[in-house]
Amino acid sequence: MHTCTAAVVGASGYAGLELTRILSRHPRVRLAALFSDRWSDDEAGARLPLQGPAAALRYRPLAGSADVEAEVAFLATPAEVSLELAPRLLARGVRVVDLSGAFRLGDPALYPQWYGFAHDQPELLAAAPYGLPELCRAELAGARLVSNPGCYATAIALAVAPLVKSGLCLPDGIAVTAMSGVSGAGRKASEDYSFCEVGEDLRAYRIGRHQHVPEIERTVARHAGRCGPLSFTPVLAPIRRGILATCTLRLAPGASPGELARALEGAYAGEPFVRVVPADRVKVADVARTNRCHLGATADVRAGLAVAVSAIDNLVKGAAGQAVQAFNAAMGFDEALGLDLLGG
Amino acid sequence: MHTCTAAVVGASGYAGLELTRILSRHPRVRLAALFSDRWSDDEAGARLPLQGPAAALRYRPLAGSADVEAEVAFLATPAEVSLELAPRLLARGVRVVDLSGAFRLGDPALYPQWYGFAHDQPELLAAAPYGLPELCRAELAGARLVSNPGCYATAIALAVAPLVKSGLCLPDGIAVTAMSGVSGAGRKASEDYSFCEVGEDLRAYRIGRHQHVPEIERTVARHAGRCGPLSFTPVLAPIRRGILATCTLRLAPGASPGELARALEGAYAGEPFVRVVPADRVKVADVARTNRCHLGATADVRAGLAVAVSAIDNLVKGAAGQAVQAFNAAMGFDEALGLDLLGG
Amino acid sequence: MHTCTAAVVGASGYAGLELTRILSRHPRVRLAALFSDRWSDDEAGARLPLQGPAAALRYRPLAGSADVEAEVAFLATPAEVSLELAPRLLARGVRVVDLSGAFRLGDPALYPQWYGFAHDQPELLAAAPYGLPELCRAELAGARLVSNPGCYATAIALAVAPLVKSGLCLPDGIAVTAMSGVSGAGRKASEDYSFCEVGEDLRAYRIGRHQHVPEIERTVARHAGRCGPLSFTPVLAPIRRGILATCTLRLAPGASPGELARALEGAYAGEPFVRVVPADRVKVADVARTNRCHLGATADVRAGLAVAVSAIDNLVKGAAGQAVQAFNAAMGFDEALGLDLLGG
Amino acid sequence: MHTCTAAVVGASGYAGLELTRILSRHPRVRLAALFSDRWSDDEAGARLPLQGPAAALRYRPLAGSADVEAEVAFLATPAEVSLELAPRLLARGVRVVDLSGAFRLGDPALYPQWYGFAHDQPELLAAAPYGLPELCRAELAGARLVSNPGCYATAIALAVAPLVKSGLCLPDGIAVTAMSGVSGAGRKASEDYSFCEVGEDLRAYRIGRHQHVPEIERTVARHAGRCGPLSFTPVLAPIRRGILATCTLRLAPGASPGELARALEGAYAGEPFVRVVPADRVKVADVARTNRCHLGATADVRAGLAVAVSAIDNLVKGAAGQAVQAFNAAMGFDEALGLDLLGG
Repeated sequence: MHTCTAAVVGASGYAGLELTRILSRHPRVRLAALFSDRWSDDEAGARLPLQGPAAALRYRPLAGSADVEAEVAFLATPAEVSLELAPRLLARGVRVVDLSGAFRLGDPALYPQWYGFAHDQPELLAAAPYGLPELCRAELAGARLVSNPGCYATAIALAVAPLVKSGLCLPDGIAVTAMSGVSGAGRKASEDYSFCEVGEDLRAYRIGRHQHVPEIERTVARHAGRCGPLSFTPVLAPIRRGILATCTLRLAPGASPGELARALEGAYAGEPFVRVVPADRVKVADVARTNRCHLGATADVRAGLAVAVSAIDNLVKGAAGQAVQAFNAAMGFDEALGLDLLGG
Repeated sequence: MHTCTAAVVGASGYAGLELTRILSRHPRVRLAALFSDRWSDDEAGARLPLQGPAAALRYRPLAGSADVEAEVAFLATPAEVSLELAPRLLARGVRVVDLSGAFRLGDPALYPQWYGFAHDQPELLAAAPYGLPELCRAELAGARLVSNPGCYATAIALAVAPLVKSGLCLPDGIAVTAMSGVSGAGRKASEDYSFCEVGEDLRAYRIGRHQHVPEIERTVARHAGRCGPLSFTPVLAPIRRGILATCTLRLAPGASPGELARALEGAYAGEPFVRVVPADRVKVADVARTNRCHLGATADVRAGLAVAVSAIDNLVKGAAGQAVQAFNAAMGFDEALGLDLLGG
Repeated sequence: MHTCTAAVVGASGYAGLELTRILSRHPRVRLAALFSDRWSDDEAGARLPLQGPAAALRYRPLAGSADVEAEVAFLATPAEVSLELAPRLLARGVRVVDLSGAFRLGDPALYPQWYGFAHDQPELLAAAPYGLPELCRAELAGARLVSNPGCYATAIALAVAPLVKSGLCLPDGIAVTAMSGVSGAGRKASEDYSFCEVGEDLRAYRIGRHQHVPEIERTVARHAGRCGPLSFTPVLAPIRRGILATCTLRLAPGASPGELARALEGAYAGEPFVRVVPADRVKVADVARTNRCHLGATADVRAGLAVAVSAIDNLVKGAAGQAVQAFNAAMGFDEALGLDLLGG
Repeated sequence: MHTCTAAVVGASGYAGLELTRILSRHPRVRLAALFSDRWSDDEAGARLPLQGPAAALRYRPLAGSADVEAEVAFLATPAEVSLELAPRLLARGVRVVDLSGAFRLGDPALYPQWYGFAHDQPELLAAAPYGLPELCRAELAGARLVSNPGCYATAIALAVAPLVKSGLCLPDGIAVTAMSGVSGAGRKASEDYSFCEVGEDLRAYRIGRHQHVPEIERTVARHAGRCGPLSFTPVLAPIRRGILATCTLRLAPGASPGELARALEGAYAGEPFVRVVPADRVKVADVARTNRCHLGATADVRAGLAVAVSAIDNLVKGAAGQAVQAFNAAMGFDEALGLDLLGG
């Protein structure tokens, strides 16, 4: 059985660490290279509890990553770095799974506003399949470049898209508040993310301006036909990993409450990683360190609104796990391969 | 200068502890009695870092609280206990500040649905002033019975009421997600609130069914003229105290974004405990262990929605501090008396 | 290749959950039964993110566990329950790995003082191999009853035993402080372990009286020849899982500092789950959710003392993982089988 | 009654913030100046929940602090800054309370090893009273320069000194492990103190090399006559503030266990801020946000060792609160003035 050689670029960030862990145990992957300037020359086994040959890999400087010898490269790099690296790797025949936002928005015109840079790869952007298998599976088979979804976008789109598609909820006036663990901000020295500042605190940030907004709208619109401008309020919560999204949508006239749960169940029947539960039972702790999304919806008929709640681990289903799931889909492997994570 | 004798009933719960701390230092109050079955006969100074005469008080069994000799009794008791105690105390001439929901909803018909019991004191209910001075100051002067607001209701009503009253936001379709610290659930032995279950977790609960919903709607309607049914999703967050509420409202046609902050600033000019800040700067940590509410609003013009964010300490501005503030108002004292809390 | 059928008794406690996770993926094990009164009749897959056939198992009442059809039973039950269950299972030919203290102390006379009950199985007690492979591997091969070590005892004995055996440290006057996560107290409804009481707190408990004291002394003495009475101060820390032990020993006259690390390295050369690192680099986070122990030692020559620091995950190397490791040893499997845990 | 004008230098660090809070409410102090480069020109009331005139103070650049017009300056600055500032302020007649280690060790020869710099003010060093009123009250009356104790040193010396002085414990072979909250590391941008790295972790650091070691030994020796080299292992714990110290000492021959508690009670009778409790009841949560130290001792007679446990808030009794207490002592005020903190 073919074993695919893989590289992780940006291997010392939180998503890169998680990729390394997962790929080191993936039965169809051999980790061939890990790139990180910060840990350059250290052994991977000294940084992570790896077993087997991956433990002996040494981190290499990022500068060499474009020339890596591997069949697939997972890019856990800033969007601007991915934008530059991906075409070089693709040109050399290396398959790319990019975890940044560099290839998510479809339309280059959106980049200056939401990402703060001009996009110079419109063809790649237009062609990149979106690595959310539950909503975009068809486009993933055989993909050479996969654009892995954002963490918030994953949690929110999985909850919202089927409800809008079902017609039970309206595509306009959607309001989302989502709380994220601190690892969502990446690994960095910053007083803002210090234990003393984050512990016992909650704060909203980038209200209505988070770069996942157009990504969510695009994903919902592609799946459900239409999505009006959506209001998104991210909140920083004192947990290390995990996202809980609460999404309020307008109920369509005549929509009955019981139909909401059925719409979600129908949408995700057979999905190995999505579990529909009562909205009051969705908990970050149940999905932490797994590739799962737990979600549920309830109708607040008094208010004419539906509330959908969804939880993921931002580093797994929101990043590394989903990247591996999409890679599996692209390779024609069982999507769950290497993703039998224990949680806890 | 007159010093008022005060009793705390339910003194070993989290709100009762906070009341004891605050009242022990209040310059116009002498703590005369503390009632708690759990700590019956213990000295208060062994339970709390009190200085002065309050430290020597001994907790007494709740059974004797109706006969307390004091000018005012603060009831940090379950709603059904308050409902039974308040009339007995009032009949004996004891002023009552009730921290439960027993006297909050105005209409007895709402109690079976939202509180699970029938209300047998409709006259008291109709007459009880609502202890939210910033919105209901007029009715507090001289009050014999004050119904202290709920913690979520305080945070949400303070943010929402002025925006609706201003006409900049519509009274319908309001959607709120609010995260609360664990002390909001009270002090009790419960696996659900154990460190292992709450730590690193986030979960929604009682979506659309929380008992503060009718309280919020009533408060906003009284202040702003009207409030449609509001959707409220409470979330349990791994902090010990504090609430962050994110409130999404529909912008009125033609409402300009800058007007939102001005409406809040106008509403709370001169208020010692409300501070209007940019919505992205509202943090639980800034109000923890104070009687303050920090709030702000921003317009998401793309989506035609306004987002208001507000933060309080659920045990202070959401309970004990506000009770003292309302008591000060009822007594004609400076509202800030005894509330120069250090935060931190 | 033979696959062994296994049962977990006490499957809904924290150690039982961890056993279920690990065994569900163990390549030589088929989970045959899970016993838990609390979750009786629930599907395991509804409680844990299991994949494969284990997900369909239903929890069964504890009462039936003595009659289980399985080759091995892991008992995550209180000591008094294990004491009663183990002989019945052994009599029916079921191998037993007991995670309680029921078979740890060797001498029945110690039980009334340290465990509060009289031990009525002196033969089993005398014969039970101690499941700490790094120190007691020889006695584990083929064992029918394994007594799995306590969590504190594992962390402390692994650090202390080789230093005493080496002669670099004296066997008398050993003083240990060890901080444990809250899951060490088990899963229960208790105000003492509530988020509000544990969060932002640290407290010592059962100083000098913890039931792991005689277990540690016995293990060190068996390994190193002698161990004087040891002073142990456990501390409850606001983490969910993990133990950090700081052990202070008297340096032998003439002992040179560099020898301490070498003694540890020599003792654990080739061990898959013990890693010797500088004492200042031992971190709970590095071993969380793994079966590893990280440890190190340094000499405080000024004070004539050695300080050894050790970290484990109390639920893995301190309970479920070690139980599987010892089971692997008893069965003649590779000790690391099923224990390629990702950490994080 | 005289009101003393005070300045805080280094007002935006964690200790400086706490000083500002406390002094803003101190009945015999008028805050005259706050120095902080980071917040230069901001109003204090925008940073802290201050009431009254202190809220209107504007932070000023540190460069001007040597010329401040105030009767007393509290220096919450690094040791090398304090070393340079203190003589300049004293020369201008400004009383100084220094919270750094610059004047703690008595002997300049110790500075290169423990602080990494040469001390150039031997006369000031020799003369500076040590601001631990419970052990050094006599030298504080009228002091112009107070050297405020370190946080660990406070917790440990208060527990250890009376036990050694009593003769019940020996002055040699003392071994201390103390866990500290993250604010002890100061306010800074550092990945090491980020929420993701500190949360759910415990780690030891600077074992035997922490700069408080000679300070503790000096304090114990001055109080008790002698103190042998002491072994100290600091541990970083995931709390924001607070220290729990566990100190193991050798019991003197014939020392009876009950005598330990009596020795502590005798030593601290009448002290407003020290409370002797059973060692198993010492909790950080009980002293958080107060100027209190809770401590207790127990004898482990089997091991011939005593274990003393002590808890303080590192920012209050371990820094700002104790500085105010020592200032009160120096001024001849009631030591408890301004320190009626609520805790919680």
